[in-house]
Amino acid sequence: MRDPAENAQLALLLEVSGTPKPGNVDRRREYEDLRFEQFMAGAVGALSGLRMAGDGEPIGAAFEQAVEGMSDQSGGNTQFGALLALVPLVRTAGTDQLTRESAESVVEATTVEDACDFYRAFEHVDVAVNDPPEGIDELDVRHGSDATEAIREQGTTLSDVMSLSADHDGVASEWISGFERSFGAAGWLLDDDGPVYKRASRAFLRLLASEPDTFVGIRNGEAAAIEATERAQAVLDGEEDPEELAAEFVERDINPGATADLTAAALFIALERGLEV
Amino acid sequence: MRDPAENAQLALLLEVSGTPKPGNVDRRREYEDLRFEQFMAGAVGALSGLRMAGDGEPIGAAFEQAVEGMSDQSGGNTQFGALLALVPLVRTAGTDQLTRESAESVVEATTVEDACDFYRAFEHVDVAVNDPPEGIDELDVRHGSDATEAIREQGTTLSDVMSLSADHDGVASEWISGFERSFGAAGWLLDDDGPVYKRASRAFLRLLASEPDTFVGIRNGEAAAIEATERAQAVLDGEEDPEELAAEFVERDINPGATADLTAAALFIALERGLEV
Repeated sequence: MRDPAENAQLALLLEVSGTPKPGNVDRRREYEDLRFEQFMAGAVGALSGLRMAGDGEPIGAAFEQAVEGMSDQSGGNTQFGALLALVPLVRTAGTDQLTRESAESVVEATTVEDACDFYRAFEHVDVAVNDPPEGIDELDVRHGSDATEAIREQGTTLSDVMSLSADHDGVASEWISGFERSFGAAGWLLDDDGPVYKRASRAFLRLLASEPDTFVGIRNGEAAAIEATERAQAVLDGEEDPEELAAEFVERDINPGATADLTAAALFIALERGLEV
Repeated sequence: MRDPAENAQLALLLEVSGTPKPGNVDRRREYEDLRFEQFMAGAVGALSGLRMAGDGEPIGAAFEQAVEGMSDQSGGNTQFGALLALVPLVRTAGTDQLTRESAESVVEATTVEDACDFYRAFEHVDVAVNDPPEGIDELDVRHGSDATEAIREQGTTLSDVMSLSADHDGVASEWISGFERSFGAAGWLLDDDGPVYKRASRAFLRLLASEPDTFVGIRNGEAAAIEATERAQAVLDGEEDPEELAAEFVERDINPGATADLTAAALFIALERGLEV
Protein backbone atom coordinates (compact mmCIF):
# COMPACT_ATOMS: atom_id res chain seq x y z
CA MET A 1 0.00 0.00 0.00
CA ARG A 2 1.44 3.34 -1.05
CA ASP A 3 1.35 6.09 1.60
CA PRO A 4 0.29 9.65 0.65
CA ALA A 5 3.87 10.76 -0.11
CA GLU A 6 4.34 7.80 -2.45
CA ASN A 7 1.02 8.45 -4.16
CA ALA A 8 2.10 12.07 -4.68
CA GLN A 9 5.37 10.92 -6.24
CA LEU A 10 3.40 8.56 -8.48
CA ALA A 11 1.01 11.40 -9.39
CA LEU A 12 4.00 13.46 -10.59
CA LEU A 13 5.17 10.55 -12.72
CA LEU A 14 1.72 9.75 -14.10
CA GLU A 15 1.10 13.42 -14.93
CA VAL A 16 4.17 13.67 -17.14
CA SER A 17 3.45 10.21 -18.60
CA GLY A 18 -0.05 11.25 -19.69
CA THR A 19 -0.22 11.84 -23.44
CA PRO A 20 -1.20 13.79 -25.47
CA LYS A 21 -1.26 16.90 -23.27
CA PRO A 22 -0.84 19.65 -25.88
CA GLY A 23 2.17 21.84 -25.10
CA ASN A 24 3.37 19.92 -22.05
CA VAL A 25 6.35 17.64 -21.77
CA ASP A 26 4.95 14.12 -21.94
CA ARG A 27 6.04 10.61 -22.88
CA ARG A 28 6.17 11.54 -26.56
CA ARG A 29 7.22 15.20 -26.53
CA GLU A 30 9.76 17.36 -24.81
CA TYR A 31 11.69 20.60 -25.14
CA GLU A 32 15.42 20.56 -25.85
CA ASP A 33 16.12 22.28 -22.52
CA LEU A 34 13.31 20.56 -20.56
CA ARG A 35 13.24 16.83 -21.05
CA PHE A 36 11.06 13.97 -19.92
CA GLU A 37 13.94 12.37 -18.02
CA GLN A 38 14.37 15.55 -15.97
CA PHE A 39 10.80 15.14 -14.73
CA MET A 40 11.75 11.60 -13.64
CA ALA A 41 14.67 12.99 -11.62
CA GLY A 42 12.46 15.78 -10.28
CA ALA A 43 9.92 13.27 -8.97
CA VAL A 44 12.65 11.17 -7.33
CA GLY A 45 14.13 14.24 -5.63
CA ALA A 46 10.76 15.59 -4.46
CA LEU A 47 9.84 12.58 -2.34
CA SER A 48 11.67 13.53 0.84
CA GLY A 49 9.76 16.84 1.04
CA LEU A 50 6.46 15.13 0.23
CA ARG A 51 7.19 12.69 3.04
CA MET A 52 7.70 15.60 5.45
CA ALA A 53 4.26 16.88 4.45
CA GLY A 54 2.70 13.47 4.98
CA ASP A 55 4.38 13.15 8.38
CA GLY A 56 2.91 16.42 9.64
CA GLU A 57 5.97 18.67 9.46
CA PRO A 58 5.35 22.35 8.61
CA ILE A 59 3.93 22.88 5.11
CA GLY A 60 6.44 25.57 4.15
CA ALA A 61 9.49 23.54 5.18
CA ALA A 62 8.10 20.45 3.42
CA PHE A 63 7.51 22.45 0.25
CA GLU A 64 10.99 23.99 0.31
CA GLN A 65 12.55 20.55 0.80
CA ALA A 66 10.49 19.10 -2.06
CA VAL A 67 11.53 21.92 -4.40
CA GLU A 68 15.18 21.61 -3.40
CA GLY A 69 15.09 17.88 -4.15
CA MET A 70 13.19 18.43 -7.40
CA SER A 71 15.87 20.87 -8.53
CA ASP A 72 18.64 18.24 -8.44
CA GLN A 73 18.61 17.89 -12.24
CA SER A 74 19.72 20.12 -15.08
CA GLY A 75 16.31 21.05 -16.55
CA GLY A 76 15.37 23.69 -13.96
CA ASN A 77 11.74 23.98 -12.92
CA THR A 78 9.97 20.72 -13.66
CA GLN A 79 7.29 20.46 -10.96
CA PHE A 80 7.29 23.57 -8.75
CA GLY A 81 3.60 24.29 -9.23
CA ALA A 82 2.58 20.65 -8.97
CA LEU A 83 4.41 20.40 -5.63
CA LEU A 84 2.71 23.58 -4.42
CA ALA A 85 -0.64 21.93 -5.13
CA LEU A 86 0.40 18.54 -3.76
CA VAL A 87 2.03 19.48 -0.46
CA PRO A 88 -1.17 20.63 1.33
CA LEU A 89 -3.09 17.70 -0.16
CA VAL A 90 -0.46 15.21 1.06
CA ARG A 91 -0.57 16.83 4.49
CA THR A 92 -4.35 16.52 4.49
CA ALA A 93 -4.29 12.85 3.43
CA GLY A 94 -1.55 12.07 5.96
CA THR A 95 -3.39 13.48 8.95
CA ASP A 96 -7.11 13.49 8.12
CA GLN A 97 -9.74 12.41 5.59
CA LEU A 98 -8.84 13.85 2.18
CA THR A 99 -11.82 16.17 1.60
CA ARG A 100 -12.12 19.72 0.33
CA GLU A 101 -13.07 20.86 3.83
CA SER A 102 -10.05 19.28 5.53
CA ALA A 103 -7.75 20.65 2.80
CA GLU A 104 -9.18 24.12 3.50
CA SER A 105 -8.39 23.68 7.20
CA VAL A 106 -4.78 22.78 6.33
CA VAL A 107 -4.48 25.93 4.21
CA GLU A 108 -6.04 28.12 6.91
CA ALA A 109 -3.59 26.77 9.51
CA THR A 110 -0.50 27.88 7.57
CA THR A 111 1.79 30.34 9.37
CA VAL A 112 4.17 33.23 8.79
CA GLU A 113 7.06 30.74 8.97
CA ASP A 114 5.42 28.70 6.21
CA ALA A 115 5.34 31.85 4.10
CA CYS A 116 9.06 32.48 4.75
CA ASP A 117 9.94 28.92 3.71
CA PHE A 118 7.78 29.26 0.60
CA TYR A 119 9.81 32.33 -0.41
CA ARG A 120 13.05 30.45 0.26
CA ALA A 121 11.93 27.76 -2.19
CA PHE A 122 12.29 30.26 -5.03
CA GLU A 123 16.04 30.35 -4.41
CA HIS A 124 16.38 26.74 -5.59
CA VAL A 125 15.01 27.21 -9.09
CA ASP A 126 13.89 29.84 -11.63
CA VAL A 127 10.10 30.01 -11.78
CA ALA A 128 8.16 32.09 -14.28
CA VAL A 129 5.94 34.46 -12.26
CA ASN A 130 3.97 37.64 -12.78
CA ASP A 131 4.70 41.00 -11.21
CA PRO A 132 3.03 41.19 -7.80
CA PRO A 133 -0.13 43.30 -7.36
CA GLU A 134 0.59 47.04 -7.08
CA GLY A 135 1.69 48.29 -3.68
CA ILE A 136 3.07 45.00 -2.37
CA ASP A 137 6.36 44.89 -4.25
CA GLU A 138 8.17 43.84 -1.08
CA LEU A 139 6.28 40.53 -1.27
CA ASP A 140 7.48 39.77 -4.83
CA VAL A 141 8.50 36.09 -4.68
CA ARG A 142 11.54 36.97 -6.77
CA HIS A 143 13.02 38.54 -3.63
CA GLY A 144 13.35 35.01 -2.21
CA SER A 145 14.37 35.01 1.45
CA ASP A 146 15.03 38.78 1.28
CA ALA A 147 11.26 39.14 1.53
CA THR A 148 11.09 37.42 4.91
CA GLU A 149 11.58 40.64 6.86
CA ALA A 150 8.51 42.19 5.24
CA ILE A 151 6.55 38.96 5.70
CA ARG A 152 7.33 38.85 9.43
CA GLU A 153 6.58 42.56 9.95
CA GLN A 154 3.21 42.25 8.24
CA GLY A 155 2.37 38.86 9.77
CA THR A 156 1.66 37.42 6.33
CA THR A 157 0.81 33.69 6.41
CA LEU A 158 1.28 31.35 3.45
CA SER A 159 -2.49 31.31 3.04
CA ASP A 160 -2.38 35.14 2.80
CA VAL A 161 0.33 34.90 0.12
CA MET A 162 -1.85 32.55 -1.90
CA SER A 163 -4.86 34.90 -1.55
CA LEU A 164 -2.78 37.72 -3.05
CA SER A 165 -1.97 35.54 -6.10
CA ALA A 166 -5.26 33.72 -6.50
CA ASP A 167 -6.57 35.89 -9.33
CA HIS A 168 -3.55 35.34 -11.59
CA ASP A 169 -2.16 31.94 -10.55
CA GLY A 170 -4.00 28.70 -11.18
CA VAL A 171 -2.42 26.85 -8.26
CA ALA A 172 -2.83 29.69 -5.73
CA SER A 173 -6.52 29.90 -6.62
CA GLU A 174 -6.83 26.19 -5.79
CA TRP A 175 -5.40 26.86 -2.33
CA ILE A 176 -8.09 29.47 -1.75
CA SER A 177 -11.02 27.52 -3.21
CA GLY A 178 -10.50 24.26 -1.31
CA PHE A 179 -8.94 22.71 -4.42
CA GLU A 180 -12.25 22.83 -6.25
CA ARG A 181 -10.94 22.08 -9.75
CA SER A 182 -8.48 19.42 -8.54
CA PHE A 183 -11.21 17.48 -6.73
CA GLY A 184 -13.49 17.88 -9.74
CA ALA A 185 -10.88 16.52 -12.12
CA ALA A 186 -10.15 13.64 -9.71
CA GLY A 187 -13.79 12.66 -10.16
CA TRP A 188 -13.35 12.67 -13.95
CA LEU A 189 -10.28 10.43 -13.62
CA LEU A 190 -12.15 7.94 -11.44
CA ASP A 191 -15.28 7.92 -13.64
CA ASP A 192 -13.23 7.48 -16.84
CA ASP A 193 -11.94 4.11 -18.04
CA GLY A 194 -8.87 2.69 -19.76
CA PRO A 195 -5.16 3.27 -19.10
CA VAL A 196 -4.24 6.11 -16.75
CA TYR A 197 -2.17 7.90 -19.40
CA LYS A 198 -5.30 8.40 -21.51
CA ARG A 199 -7.43 9.42 -18.52
CA ALA A 200 -4.76 11.97 -17.56
CA SER A 201 -4.78 13.34 -21.10
CA ARG A 202 -8.58 13.73 -21.10
CA ALA A 203 -8.65 15.34 -17.65
CA PHE A 204 -5.93 17.77 -18.72
CA LEU A 205 -7.88 18.76 -21.83
CA ARG A 206 -11.10 19.28 -19.85
CA LEU A 207 -9.28 21.43 -17.28
CA LEU A 208 -7.61 23.46 -20.03
CA ALA A 209 -10.87 23.92 -21.93
CA SER A 210 -12.65 25.12 -18.81
CA GLU A 211 -10.25 27.95 -17.85
CA PRO A 212 -7.29 29.79 -19.46
CA ASP A 213 -3.92 28.53 -18.21
CA THR A 214 -2.23 31.17 -16.03
CA PHE A 215 1.29 29.92 -16.86
CA VAL A 216 0.61 30.38 -20.59
CA GLY A 217 -0.80 33.81 -19.74
CA ILE A 218 2.44 34.83 -18.02
CA ARG A 219 4.82 33.40 -20.62
CA ASN A 220 2.93 33.83 -23.90
CA GLY A 221 0.28 36.46 -23.15
CA GLU A 222 -3.48 36.42 -22.59
CA ALA A 223 -4.36 35.87 -26.26
CA ALA A 224 -2.33 32.64 -26.34
CA ALA A 225 -3.94 31.49 -23.08
CA ILE A 226 -7.42 32.02 -24.50
CA GLU A 227 -6.44 30.31 -27.75
CA ALA A 228 -5.14 27.27 -25.81
CA THR A 229 -8.46 27.01 -23.99
CA GLU A 230 -10.49 27.27 -27.19
CA ARG A 231 -8.38 24.70 -28.99
CA ALA A 232 -8.57 22.26 -26.07
CA GLN A 233 -12.35 22.55 -26.37
CA ALA A 234 -12.03 21.91 -30.12
CA VAL A 235 -10.15 18.69 -29.34
CA LEU A 236 -12.90 17.63 -26.93
CA ASP A 237 -15.47 18.43 -29.62
CA GLY A 238 -13.60 16.24 -32.11
CA GLU A 239 -12.71 19.20 -34.32
CA GLU A 240 -8.95 19.14 -33.74
CA ASP A 241 -6.44 16.30 -33.60
CA PRO A 242 -4.77 16.34 -30.15
CA GLU A 243 -1.48 14.92 -31.47
CA GLU A 244 -1.21 17.66 -34.10
CA LEU A 245 -2.11 20.31 -31.55
CA ALA A 246 0.52 18.90 -29.19
CA ALA A 247 3.20 19.14 -31.88
CA GLU A 248 2.14 22.71 -32.76
CA PHE A 249 2.10 23.94 -29.14
CA VAL A 250 5.54 22.47 -28.42
CA GLU A 251 6.81 24.15 -31.60
CA ARG A 252 5.32 27.48 -30.43
CA ASP A 253 6.51 26.94 -26.82
CA ILE A 254 2.94 27.20 -25.47
CA ASN A 255 3.16 25.05 -22.31
CA PRO A 256 -0.01 24.97 -20.16
CA GLY A 257 1.96 24.24 -17.00
CA ALA A 258 -0.63 25.36 -14.45
CA THR A 259 -3.15 22.96 -15.98
CA ALA A 260 -0.54 20.20 -15.70
CA ASP A 261 -0.07 21.11 -12.02
CA LEU A 262 -3.79 20.67 -11.41
CA THR A 263 -3.74 17.40 -13.33
CA ALA A 264 -1.04 16.13 -10.96
CA ALA A 265 -3.14 17.20 -7.96
CA ALA A 266 -6.18 15.46 -9.45
CA LEU A 267 -4.17 12.27 -10.07
CA PHE A 268 -3.05 12.31 -6.43
CA ILE A 269 -6.62 12.65 -5.12
CA ALA A 270 -7.78 9.90 -7.50
CA LEU A 271 -4.95 7.56 -6.38
CA GLU A 272 -5.87 8.18 -2.73
CA ARG A 273 -9.46 7.32 -3.63
CA GLY A 274 -8.56 4.05 -5.32
CA LEU A 275 -7.54 4.76 -8.92
CA GLU A 276 -5.76 1.57 -10.00
CA VAL A 277 -2.54 1.67 -12.02
CA MET B 1 22.23 15.00 -3.65
CA ARG B 2 20.44 11.73 -4.30
CA ASP B 3 21.44 8.83 -2.04
CA PRO B 4 22.06 5.34 -3.54
CA ALA B 5 18.44 4.24 -3.02
CA GLU B 6 17.18 7.33 -4.85
CA ASN B 7 19.67 6.83 -7.66
CA ALA B 8 18.44 3.24 -7.99
CA GLN B 9 14.83 4.43 -8.20
CA LEU B 10 15.89 6.95 -10.84
CA ALA B 11 17.77 4.20 -12.72
CA LEU B 12 14.53 2.17 -12.89
CA LEU B 13 12.69 5.21 -14.29
CA LEU B 14 15.44 6.12 -16.77
CA GLU B 15 15.68 2.53 -17.98
CA VAL B 16 12.03 2.36 -18.96
CA SER B 17 12.21 5.91 -20.35
CA GLY B 18 15.07 4.98 -22.70
CA THR B 19 13.88 4.62 -26.28
CA PRO B 20 14.05 2.82 -28.65
CA LYS B 21 14.86 -0.41 -26.80
CA PRO B 22 13.51 -3.00 -29.26
CA GLY B 23 10.95 -5.30 -27.59
CA ASN B 24 10.94 -3.56 -24.20
CA VAL B 25 8.30 -1.34 -22.73
CA ASP B 26 9.57 2.19 -23.18
CA ARG B 27 8.25 5.74 -23.46
CA ARG B 28 6.81 5.03 -26.90
CA ARG B 29 5.80 1.38 -26.73
CA GLU B 30 4.02 -0.91 -24.34
CA TYR B 31 2.07 -4.15 -24.14
CA GLU B 32 -1.66 -4.12 -23.46
CA ASP B 33 -1.13 -6.05 -20.23
CA LEU B 34 2.20 -4.41 -19.30
CA ARG B 35 2.12 -0.65 -19.55
CA PHE B 36 4.60 2.16 -19.10
CA GLU B 37 2.61 3.60 -16.21
CA GLN B 38 2.89 0.30 -14.33
CA PHE B 39 6.68 0.68 -14.43
CA MET B 40 6.24 4.14 -12.85
CA ALA B 41 4.21 2.59 -10.02
CA GLY B 42 6.73 -0.26 -9.73
CA ALA B 43 9.60 2.21 -9.26
CA VAL B 44 7.64 4.16 -6.63
CA GLY B 45 6.84 0.98 -4.71
CA ALA B 46 10.39 -0.41 -4.90
CA LEU B 47 12.04 2.49 -3.07
CA SER B 48 11.46 1.31 0.50
CA GLY B 49 13.28 -1.97 -0.21
CA LEU B 50 16.08 -0.17 -2.05
CA ARG B 51 16.43 2.08 1.00
CA MET B 52 16.79 -0.99 3.24
CA ALA B 53 19.63 -2.17 1.00
CA GLY B 54 21.34 1.23 1.15
CA ASP B 55 20.98 1.31 4.94
CA GLY B 56 22.76 -2.01 5.38
CA GLU B 57 19.81 -4.28 6.16
CA PRO B 58 20.03 -7.90 4.93
CA ILE B 59 20.10 -8.17 1.12
CA GLY B 60 17.40 -10.84 0.96
CA ALA B 61 14.94 -8.91 3.14
CA ALA B 62 15.65 -5.70 1.20
CA PHE B 63 15.02 -7.50 -2.10
CA GLU B 64 11.79 -9.08 -0.88
CA GLN B 65 10.55 -5.69 0.34
CA ALA B 66 11.47 -4.04 -2.98
CA VAL B 67 9.62 -6.73 -4.94
CA GLU B 68 6.58 -6.53 -2.69
CA GLY B 69 6.44 -2.76 -3.20
CA MET B 70 7.05 -3.09 -6.95
CA SER B 71 4.11 -5.49 -7.18
CA ASP B 72 1.58 -2.92 -5.95
CA GLN B 73 0.25 -2.30 -9.49
CA SER B 74 -1.83 -4.38 -11.87
CA GLY B 75 0.83 -5.20 -14.52
CA GLY B 76 2.59 -7.97 -12.61
CA ASN B 77 6.36 -8.29 -12.95
CA THR B 78 7.77 -4.95 -14.07
CA GLN B 79 11.25 -4.83 -12.51
CA PHE B 80 11.99 -8.08 -10.62
CA GLY B 81 15.28 -8.72 -12.44
CA ALA B 82 16.36 -5.08 -12.33
CA LEU B 83 15.84 -5.07 -8.56
CA LEU B 84 17.83 -8.29 -8.23
CA ALA B 85 20.72 -6.57 -9.99
CA LEU B 86 20.29 -3.27 -8.14
CA VAL B 87 19.94 -4.45 -4.53
CA PRO B 88 23.55 -5.67 -4.07
CA LEU B 89 24.85 -2.62 -5.97
CA VAL B 90 22.86 -0.23 -3.75
CA ARG B 91 24.16 -2.05 -0.67
CA THR B 92 27.71 -1.71 -2.02
CA ALA B 93 27.31 2.01 -2.77
CA GLY B 94 25.66 2.60 0.62
CA THR B 95 28.44 1.04 2.66
CA ASP B 96 31.62 1.12 0.55
CA GLN B 97 33.18 2.39 -2.68
CA LEU B 98 31.10 1.14 -5.62
CA THR B 99 33.62 -1.11 -7.37
CA ARG B 100 33.42 -4.59 -8.88
CA GLU B 101 35.56 -5.91 -6.02
CA SER B 102 33.36 -4.48 -3.26
CA ALA B 103 30.21 -5.69 -5.06
CA GLU B 104 31.76 -9.17 -5.14
CA SER B 105 32.34 -8.99 -1.39
CA VAL B 106 28.68 -8.07 -0.85
CA VAL B 107 27.60 -11.08 -2.92
CA GLU B 108 29.99 -13.41 -1.08
CA ALA B 109 28.65 -12.27 2.30
CA THR B 110 25.06 -13.27 1.54
CA THR B 111 23.54 -15.86 3.86
CA VAL B 112 21.07 -18.74 4.00
CA GLU B 113 18.47 -16.29 5.37
CA ASP B 114 19.04 -14.06 2.33
CA ALA B 115 18.32 -17.09 0.14
CA CYS B 116 15.09 -17.80 2.04
CA ASP B 117 13.94 -14.20 1.61
CA PHE B 118 14.82 -14.33 -2.09
CA TYR B 119 12.53 -17.34 -2.49
CA ARG B 120 9.78 -15.55 -0.58
CA ALA B 121 9.97 -12.69 -3.11
CA PHE B 122 8.60 -15.04 -5.77
CA GLU B 123 5.32 -15.20 -3.86
CA HIS B 124 4.61 -11.52 -4.63
CA VAL B 125 4.63 -11.78 -8.41
CA ASP B 126 4.74 -14.21 -11.34
CA VAL B 127 8.22 -14.35 -12.85
CA ALA B 128 9.11 -16.27 -16.01
CA VAL B 129 11.87 -18.72 -15.05
CA ASN B 130 13.51 -21.82 -16.42
CA ASP B 131 13.34 -25.29 -14.91
CA PRO B 132 16.12 -25.65 -12.34
CA PRO B 133 19.20 -27.74 -13.19
CA GLU B 134 18.60 -31.50 -12.92
CA GLY B 135 18.77 -32.98 -9.44
CA ILE B 136 17.98 -29.80 -7.52
CA ASP B 137 14.25 -29.62 -8.07
CA GLU B 138 13.70 -28.78 -4.41
CA LEU B 139 15.42 -25.44 -5.07
CA ASP B 140 13.04 -24.48 -7.90
CA VAL B 141 12.16 -20.84 -7.18
CA ARG B 142 8.56 -21.62 -8.07
CA HIS B 143 8.29 -23.39 -4.73
CA GLY B 144 8.55 -19.96 -3.07
CA SER B 145 8.92 -20.20 0.68
CA ASP B 146 8.19 -23.96 0.54
CA ALA B 147 11.80 -24.29 -0.59
CA THR B 148 13.19 -22.78 2.61
CA GLU B 149 13.38 -26.12 4.40
CA ALA B 150 15.68 -27.53 1.71
CA ILE B 151 17.71 -24.30 1.65
CA ARG B 152 18.29 -24.43 5.39
CA GLU B 153 19.13 -28.16 5.38
CA GLN B 154 21.68 -27.71 2.61
CA GLY B 155 23.07 -24.42 3.94
CA THR B 156 22.50 -22.74 0.56
CA THR B 157 23.35 -19.02 0.56
CA LEU B 158 21.89 -16.50 -1.89
CA SER B 159 25.26 -16.40 -3.61
CA ASP B 160 25.02 -20.22 -4.03
CA VAL B 161 21.54 -19.85 -5.54
CA MET B 162 22.88 -17.36 -8.07
CA SER B 163 25.78 -19.68 -8.95
CA LEU B 164 23.28 -22.42 -9.79
CA SER B 165 21.46 -20.08 -12.21
CA ALA B 166 24.41 -18.20 -13.64
CA ASP B 167 24.60 -20.15 -16.89
CA HIS B 168 20.98 -19.52 -17.88
CA ASP B 169 20.10 -16.22 -16.21
CA GLY B 170 21.63 -12.91 -17.26
CA VAL B 171 21.21 -11.27 -13.85
CA ALA B 172 22.47 -14.24 -11.82
CA SER B 173 25.59 -14.35 -13.97
CA GLU B 174 26.23 -10.71 -13.09
CA TRP B 175 26.11 -11.60 -9.39
CA ILE B 176 28.80 -14.20 -9.97
CA SER B 177 31.04 -12.14 -12.28
CA GLY B 178 31.26 -9.00 -10.10
CA PHE B 179 28.71 -7.29 -12.35
CA GLU B 180 31.14 -7.27 -15.25
CA ARG B 181 28.68 -6.33 -17.98
CA SER B 182 26.84 -3.76 -15.82
CA PHE B 183 30.05 -1.90 -14.99
CA GLY B 184 31.13 -2.10 -18.64
CA ALA B 185 27.84 -0.61 -19.85
CA ALA B 186 28.06 2.11 -17.16
CA GLY B 187 31.32 3.15 -18.82
CA TRP B 188 29.53 3.36 -22.19
CA LEU B 189 26.81 5.55 -20.66
CA LEU B 190 29.37 7.92 -19.14
CA ASP B 191 31.50 8.11 -22.30
CA ASP B 192 28.45 8.71 -24.52
CA ASP B 193 26.86 12.13 -24.97
CA GLY B 194 23.39 13.62 -25.39
CA PRO B 195 20.16 12.98 -23.48
CA VAL B 196 20.11 9.99 -21.15
CA TYR B 197 17.21 8.34 -22.97
CA LYS B 198 19.36 8.01 -26.09
CA ARG B 199 22.40 6.82 -24.14
CA ALA B 200 20.24 4.19 -22.45
CA SER B 201 18.97 3.04 -25.84
CA ARG B 202 22.50 2.68 -27.22
CA ALA B 203 23.80 0.88 -24.12
CA PHE B 204 20.83 -1.50 -24.30
CA LEU B 205 21.54 -2.28 -27.97
CA ARG B 206 25.24 -2.89 -27.30
CA LEU B 207 24.45 -5.22 -24.38
CA LEU B 208 21.87 -7.09 -26.47
CA ALA B 209 24.26 -7.39 -29.44
CA SER B 210 27.01 -8.80 -27.23
CA GLU B 211 25.06 -11.69 -25.65
CA PRO B 212 21.71 -13.45 -26.21
CA ASP B 213 19.03 -12.31 -23.77
CA THR B 214 18.19 -15.09 -21.32
CA PHE B 215 14.63 -13.83 -20.75
CA VAL B 216 13.92 -14.06 -24.50
CA GLY B 217 15.51 -17.53 -24.43
CA ILE B 218 13.09 -18.68 -21.71
CA ARG B 219 9.94 -17.13 -23.20
CA ASN B 220 10.54 -17.32 -26.96
CA GLY B 221 13.24 -19.97 -27.36
CA GLU B 222 16.94 -19.93 -28.19
CA ALA B 223 16.48 -19.13 -31.89
CA ALA B 224 14.59 -15.94 -31.03
CA ALA B 225 17.28 -14.97 -28.50
CA ILE B 226 20.00 -15.37 -31.10
CA GLU B 227 17.95 -13.47 -33.67
CA ALA B 228 17.47 -10.57 -31.22
CA THR B 229 21.22 -10.39 -30.69
CA GLU B 230 21.97 -10.42 -34.41
CA ARG B 231 19.39 -7.77 -35.19
CA ALA B 232 20.63 -5.51 -32.37
CA GLN B 233 24.04 -5.76 -34.03
CA ALA B 234 22.44 -4.87 -37.36
CA VAL B 235 20.99 -1.73 -35.77
CA LEU B 236 24.42 -0.79 -34.44
CA ASP B 237 25.86 -1.39 -37.92
CA GLY B 238 23.25 0.93 -39.43
CA GLU B 239 21.60 -1.91 -41.35
CA GLU B 240 18.29 -1.92 -39.45
CA ASP B 241 16.04 0.87 -38.26
CA PRO B 242 15.69 0.61 -34.46
CA GLU B 243 12.17 2.07 -34.41
CA GLU B 244 10.94 -0.51 -36.94
CA LEU B 245 12.68 -3.30 -35.05
CA ALA B 246 11.08 -2.08 -31.81
CA ALA B 247 7.62 -2.18 -33.40
CA GLU B 248 8.25 -5.67 -34.80
CA PHE B 249 9.55 -7.12 -31.53
CA VAL B 250 6.62 -5.74 -29.53
CA GLU B 251 4.28 -7.25 -32.14
CA ARG B 252 6.05 -10.62 -31.80
CA ASP B 253 6.26 -10.31 -27.97
CA ILE B 254 10.06 -10.62 -28.00
CA ASN B 255 10.98 -8.68 -24.86
CA PRO B 256 14.73 -8.69 -23.96
CA GLY B 257 14.03 -8.17 -20.28
CA ALA B 258 17.34 -9.43 -18.89
CA THR B 259 19.17 -6.90 -21.06
CA ALA B 260 16.86 -4.20 -19.71
CA ASP B 261 17.74 -5.33 -16.17
CA LEU B 262 21.44 -4.87 -16.88
CA THR B 263 20.73 -1.49 -18.47
CA ALA B 264 19.08 -0.40 -15.21
CA ALA B 265 22.10 -1.64 -13.24
CA ALA B 266 24.43 0.23 -15.61
CA LEU B 267 22.36 3.42 -15.26
CA PHE B 268 22.62 3.15 -11.48
CA ILE B 269 26.40 2.77 -11.56
CA ALA B 270 26.68 5.67 -14.02
CA LEU B 271 24.47 7.90 -11.82
CA GLU B 272 26.62 7.07 -8.79
CA ARG B 273 29.66 8.04 -10.85
CA GLY B 274 28.25 11.39 -11.91
CA LEU B 275 26.01 10.89 -14.94
CA GLU B 276 23.99 14.11 -15.11
CA VAL B 277 20.26 14.10 -15.85
